[in-house]
Amino acid sequence: MDTKHPLLAVDCVVFDQAGRLLLIRRKNPPFQGRYALPGGFVEYGETTEQAAARELREETNVQAAGLSLVGVYSDPGRDPRGHVVSIAYLVAAGPCDARAGSDASEAAFIAGWRDEALAFDHNRIVADAVALMKQ
Amino acid sequence: MDTKHPLLAVDCVVFDQAGRLLLIRRKNPPFQGRYALPGGFVEYGETTEQAAARELREETNVQAAGLSLVGVYSDPGRDPRGHVVSIAYLVAAGPCDARAGSDASEAAFIAGWRDEALAFDHNRIVADAVALMKQ
Repeated sequence: MDTKHPLLAVDCVVFDQAGRLLLIRRKNPPFQGRYALPGGFVEYGETTEQAAARELREETNVQAAGLSLVGVYSDPGRDPRGHVVSIAYLVAAGPCDARAGSDASEAAFIAGWRDEALAFDHNRIVADAVALMKQ
Repeated sequence: MDTKHPLLAVDCVVFDQAGRLLLIRRKNPPFQGRYALPGGFVEYGETTEQAAARELREETNVQAAGLSLVGVYSDPGRDPRGHVVSIAYLVAAGPCDARAGSDASEAAFIAGWRDEALAFDHNRIVADAVALMKQ
């Protein structure tokens, strides 16, 4: 019996109407202090879409109005804590006022997101989401 | 600390040039004796694409030549054994001779796949893969 499995997480790509990207400032390692996409681990008994909406709400106070699958990110080296597979969604959000939740020291729509070295492989996820929006 | 997490699996949708679908006959519960897509659990340290190619080879002797993401299936009730999230791929296979591996009592390209009640939510996964092929 193998007892070690990859963990499952979700990440959310949310743009506002001005083209700014919703980012959180990471409060804890890894990538402490860096910008990252809102997201987190999927809990037992919830769908990945429910997990994405929950993490988005908990971390940024933003409500998810619609989710589109961006991709599955499963490189075992993408998270220094261990093998974490992330399901990324492009999320449509209603009018909202982003504010930081418990796992973030800051949550805001950032205009200069293209110049940021995001945590994990989040730059790649954002690029894939932007490509999806252009389809 | 929560210690129970959803498990991660992969499923493969493979058609041959005649439009037949590659199916295995399940040797073990759940859905024992029913047709199912080739697939299985993702191992720690492998990508989901590697897991899909490995399971396909192990269960059917078919080599994956290319993979396209179909979707993520995460309903907690989709597997009676517990919460299993499946990543489904549409797989292009080279010329091959399907034969059953250790977890299947039969592996073959099936012409009448539209009339089969497949295991788990595999009918839905196949429908989504067919829609993807038409894009």
